[in-house]
This record gives sequence, structure tokens and C-alpha cells, in this order.
Amino acid sequence: MFCDFQDGTYVKSPSDKLTYGTMMFVRVVILQDMAGYMSKAATISIRYSAVRRQSELKPGEPEPQILDYTTQQYKLFPNLAACFALRFNAAWLWNMYNSVTAELEEGDLDRLPELHALSCCLKAVCTADVAHGVETCRLACGGHGYMTCSSMPSIYGLVTAASTYEGENTVLLLQTARYLIKAWQQAVGGMALTPTVAYLKHAVTGNTGLRRWENTAECIVRAHQQVAAGKIKMCADNMDRRIRGGISPEDAWNMTSIELAQCAEAHARAIIVNRFVETVAELIVSDALKTVLTQLSELYGVYWLLQKSGDFLMYSDVTSQDISSLQKWMEQLLAQIRPNAVGIVDGFDICDEILSSALGCYDGRVYERLFEEASKSPLNKEPVNISFQKYLKPFLKASL
Amino acid sequence: MFCDFQDGTYVKSPSDKLTYGTMMFVRVVILQDMAGYMSKAATISIRYSAVRRQSELKPGEPEPQILDYTTQQYKLFPNLAACFALRFNAAWLWNMYNSVTAELEEGDLDRLPELHALSCCLKAVCTADVAHGVETCRLACGGHGYMTCSSMPSIYGLVTAASTYEGENTVLLLQTARYLIKAWQQAVGGMALTPTVAYLKHAVTGNTGLRRWENTAECIVRAHQQVAAGKIKMCADNMDRRIRGGISPEDAWNMTSIELAQCAEAHARAIIVNRFVETVAELIVSDALKTVLTQLSELYGVYWLLQKSGDFLMYSDVTSQDISSLQKWMEQLLAQIRPNAVGIVDGFDICDEILSSALGCYDGRVYERLFEEASKSPLNKEPVNISFQKYLKPFLKASL
Repeated sequence: MFCDFQDGTYVKSPSDKLTYGTMMFVRVVILQDMAGYMSKAATISIRYSAVRRQSELKPGEPEPQILDYTTQQYKLFPNLAACFALRFNAAWLWNMYNSVTAELEEGDLDRLPELHALSCCLKAVCTADVAHGVETCRLACGGHGYMTCSSMPSIYGLVTAASTYEGENTVLLLQTARYLIKAWQQAVGGMALTPTVAYLKHAVTGNTGLRRWENTAECIVRAHQQVAAGKIKMCADNMDRRIRGGISPEDAWNMTSIELAQCAEAHARAIIVNRFVETVAELIVSDALKTVLTQLSELYGVYWLLQKSGDFLMYSDVTSQDISSLQKWMEQLLAQIRPNAVGIVDGFDICDEILSSALGCYDGRVYERLFEEASKSPLNKEPVNISFQKYLKPFLKASL
Repeated sequence: MFCDFQDGTYVKSPSDKLTYGTMMFVRVVILQDMAGYMSKAATISIRYSAVRRQSELKPGEPEPQILDYTTQQYKLFPNLAACFALRFNAAWLWNMYNSVTAELEEGDLDRLPELHALSCCLKAVCTADVAHGVETCRLACGGHGYMTCSSMPSIYGLVTAASTYEGENTVLLLQTARYLIKAWQQAVGGMALTPTVAYLKHAVTGNTGLRRWENTAECIVRAHQQVAAGKIKMCADNMDRRIRGGISPEDAWNMTSIELAQCAEAHARAIIVNRFVETVAELIVSDALKTVLTQLSELYGVYWLLQKSGDFLMYSDVTSQDISSLQKWMEQLLAQIRPNAVGIVDGFDICDEILSSALGCYDGRVYERLFEEASKSPLNKEPVNISFQKYLKPFLKASL
């Protein structure tokens, strides 16, 4: 495209910006891939947690399925919700990529910077989330999660690489931050804002007066946008203060870069939460299914709010008193999702051959499959390995 | 000890509690191991970051060492500080283990529950921290961190296992939580408290009135204790409320278990921060060394405060206004540690043979060593592998 393949001469693109095209395409594809990997890990760990029994919830009662422990639900269900968050956001970004690319071919570059900023921060946040999420699911399988035949280690190996390739995550977050700081300056200057940063205008007009918190999806979305706006404004202020103090813009940028990366992360989270809630609202499905998807979208939003509660206490309508009510809401959502959890991952319809996991197969024959996998090892060809007879037994029998 | 080894007959210990002995011993050893692994990962990633140069801080200037990027310092230096936090806490727990074991042999079981509670939560928090810390250091090495010859993947493999073995981390946190809830009830009942939970008495007497925040180690330690006390009290209240509402104690425990695990984590963090600060204060070393160790202990405390800012806004003297001043303090500490970072890891004195990393050797010959390592691969025996001549070249030459 930008290079004459016949003799290898490099021909510069008519616009520097066009070279972003391929990178953005790959980042959109990465989002789709991450949704797939997260769904595999969620399927394996949730099915295993329905088979595995351990300890006692009440003295003398049979060992419960480990999926009945609230702490286990807390490890797994936010990642189950993330499967949908990723899928819906990947589909949305894919559509935007296609329409922006069509505009590009008409010579219209207007929406390119917004798409670039989105693809950077969504790639960074989603790959980091999925690496952490897959590892959490793996750890939730206990010692069995370390076995190669669980497939969890190989899934982790594949997803953690995505934090580095196609743009290292911190570098990408800072690319988005540069866009957000510009957008903030446009907002302050009263200029029109692109749709995905339109929420900044409330922060500029000061139309953010505290409103009474309610445990609703609408409040969750607004709070995430308030946090993103608050952090973007704070970064812009810190940059200004440093530059006014005689520091060069480049040094000021480096000095502010921890907070800049975090504001891009907050922006990405606001986008993801908003998209998840809106997609579920627009879906035309049965009431029963909509109820389940709504629970998952709410869990996703509340989980991330509580993970970053400090930001919400500082920049959103959420008060200290609301935090305990949000914690209870989250616990209710976990309990509501529990009966459907296995059904939801079954709905991903990942066939056993693709899952390739002794822990996660559809039929739940975990222990039989573990035994079969272990039998395949050359070390297990005979009941007692020859090395015992040859080396260990004489050693143990010797009086040292 | 508890089993007659001659014929294998199990002989029950005179006290159930004595069987904790070996488990506690292993958990103490795990802390020491974690300090070692974290030090290796910090050494490799900090030395590499002093050799590696990338991009431009200012247009036209030479590529800086990546260690000069604030975001890189933010990834590495809190983990450098953690090396000391782990080492000092492991040494302290080791001493306590030995003195409690000596008391046990005199038939004195008094301090056993406290030691058990400590060894559980410290094992859980330290193994989780180090797994996350090592992975952060690995990611900070970019693509090279994925290479086997960096040693980073194998260090991660070793440390992540520790979150599961010798007591799964969530199970251990809940063991500590049980101790903390009992301690809280003792505090409310005006009974004497063991030293490591003595901070609870301020929370009971209500002697926690807001004090003006100052950026000092003393305030950092007190704030961590306020958070732990606040979260323990909140868990006790939630348990009470549920039980009064007719829920069985076992179900109430399960329903409260997310918060219970988190209160044990907060307790562990308060212990670690306090021990780090106190150890540095007591050390008899040069002023210059004490300055560096003080910076590291403050960085550790401030970093974790900012990571959990929501808890501190809810339960400690910290206010919203203090958060931005804490952020600036942290950024100053990163800049202060920067010139000494390589010297500090050199001080760990891990020899090249033990580090076994092309990225982390003392002489900084990263690229030469990477080339040497790559040369060892059978795939690189000849400049162009034979598979190219045999398969790829004919394929590429064919007009498909």
C-alpha cells in the first residue's frame, strides 16, 4: 500500500495518519481475541467450580460445590461479566472501524483521531484486564489450575503477551491521554466534542452538582464518566501548573504521566461500562435473558466502581455511605448470577476440542479426565517408575 | 513428631494446635523465598531499564534510558521497596516463630493463635504481591521480558505457585479474619489485646478523631492501622446484623467473606508497613543509607495508600485534598530513588550465575548476551535455516 513491492522502494503515504489504519485494525481484532480467551477461561473455571467440592460451609454437612463460596463467585463472576463487556465493545469498535475506514476512502479523516484514541485505550485496558482475569480464574481452580491439561497456563501465556505486542499498554494509554487533554482544551474552549468524549462538557460547565446516589445502571454509567472527566481535568491542571512553573511541556508530560495513564484507563472504563449497559438495553431478547444480561452489566459496573472506590469518592456523586450499599448490591448480584453461571458459560458454546481442558469439559467428568491425562505421561507407564527401584529404593534402604 | 515412623501408626498430638507448627514454619520460609524472588526480578528489570533506551523525551534529543520515564519508575520502584518490606517482615516473623516455638516446648501456647494469624495473612498478601510484582517487572522489560533467557518467565512460574500451595490465599486470609473478629470482640469487651492487634483499641475507644494529615511515615502507619481497624469493625457489624436477622453464623460468615478477606489483607498491610518503618528507624547505618531506606519505606506506604485510596478516605485521617499531595510525594520519592536504583539492586549482590538472565547481568552487556543466547538455539546454527531452502523458498517462488 505504502511501498512499491516490485523493488522495495518505500513510498510515503499521502497522510501520516493513514499509517494508523493497520494498527487500529489489529487492535480491534485483539479485542475480539481477548473476548474469546476470557470466555474460555470463564467456561473452564466455572464448570470446574460446579464439580469441585471442598470443606464445609456448615459443620457435618456435605462438602459444597466451591461455586457456592461467595469469595469464589467474587473471583469468577466479574470475569464472566467481562466476557460480555469485551464482546459488545469489540463489536462496537469493529463497526466504528469499518465506517471510519469507509470515510477515509472518501478522503474524510475527521473521525480518525477519535478512533485511534479509542483503539489505544481499549486495547490496553482489555488486554490487561483479561491477563489478570484469566490468572484469577486459573488461581480459582487451585492446584489443578497449574496443570497443563487444564489449558489455563497456556491461555494465560497467550493473553499476557497481548499487553506488550501491537503497542505496549502504557505507551498506548499515553497516546489516548494526549487525545483526552486536547479534548479537554476543546471543551474548555467551548468547541464541539466528538461523541465518546461528550461527557466532558458536564465537567466544564460545572453541571456536576452532587446528585443523590441510587443503585441503578444509569448512576453507574454517569459516575464512571464523572471519574474519567475528573481525572482528565486534574491531569490538565497538573500539566498547566508545571508548565507555568517553568517546566518544559515535555518534562511536564513525563512528570504527569502516571496520572495521564490513569485518566486514559478511567476513560476506557467509562466507555466499556456505557457500551455494555447500552447494548443490553437495546437488545431484543426474552425478558429472562435480558434480566441475566442486566445483572451481568450491573455487576461489571459495580465491581469496577468498588475496585476504584477512591476515584469515585473524589470525582463522582458516590459518597462514603453509598459504598456499603454498593457492596451489598454487588453481593446480591453474585447470588443472583450463581444459579445461571454454568448455563451462561454453556451458552458460549465452546466445544470440548477447542477448550481442550480436563477441568472444563461439558460433561463435567473432571476426575476421570484428569486420570486419563495423567495416564498419557511416560512417567506413568508403570505403577512404580523404574527410577525408584534403581536409585531411590537402595538409597532409602541404606543406613546413612 | 506426631507419628510413629517405625510402623506408620498415627499418634495424635497432645494438642490440635501443635500441628500448626510445621505449617507456620513453612509459611515463614515462603516469606523469605518471596523476598529473594522479588529481589531477582527487581535486579533484572532495573538493570535492564538502565541499559535500554527508547523513544524521545524531547524532540531531537537522544533516546533516554527507559528508567527515566516516570511510568517505568512507577512500575519498578514500589517493587524495589517491596524487596525490603518482605525481607524485614520475614526476619521479624522468623524471630517470632522461634520464640513462640521455644515457649511451646515449655507448654506455653498463649502466643500461638497470634503467630498463626500473622503467618496466614502475611503468606497470602506477600505471595500475591510478589506474583503481581514480578509480572509487572517482566512486563516493564517489554518483549525481551518474554524471552526464557531473561529468566523472568521462570521466576513468575515459581512465585505464582506460592499463592496456592501451603494454604490457598483466600482460605488463609479467612483464617486470619476469624482471629481478627475475635480480637475485635475482645477489644469491645475491654480485654487485653495481643501486640499486633493492639491498634484496635483506638477504634473501640473512638480515639480516632480526625487529625490533620501530614506526609510523614508516622501518619502513613497510623492510617494503615485505621483502615485495618475500620474494615475489621465493619465486618463484625455486618456479621452481627446478618445473625440478628436470623441468618446462621456459618451462612453469615460466607455472605461476609469478601469483606472478611479484605480486612485480613488490610491488617497484613498495616503490619508490613509498620514493620518496614520501624525496622528502618532502628537500623544503625550511615545517614546516607538511612535516607535511601527511609525513601523506600515511605514509597511503599504511600504507594499502597494510593492503591487503596477509597479505604483511606473512608476509614483514616486522609481527606480528598490530601490525596493529590500524597500523589506528589510519591512522584518526588520516585525521582529521589532514581539515581540510586541501580546501586540498590547491585547491593542485593545476586551473582550472575544465580540471576541467570541475559537482561540483568552486572556488566550490562544486554545485547551481546541476548545474541549469545540466541546463538545457542539449534534453529540458529546456520544463517538461513534449511527449512527455508527446502519448503519456503520454492513456495515463495511458485506462482500461486
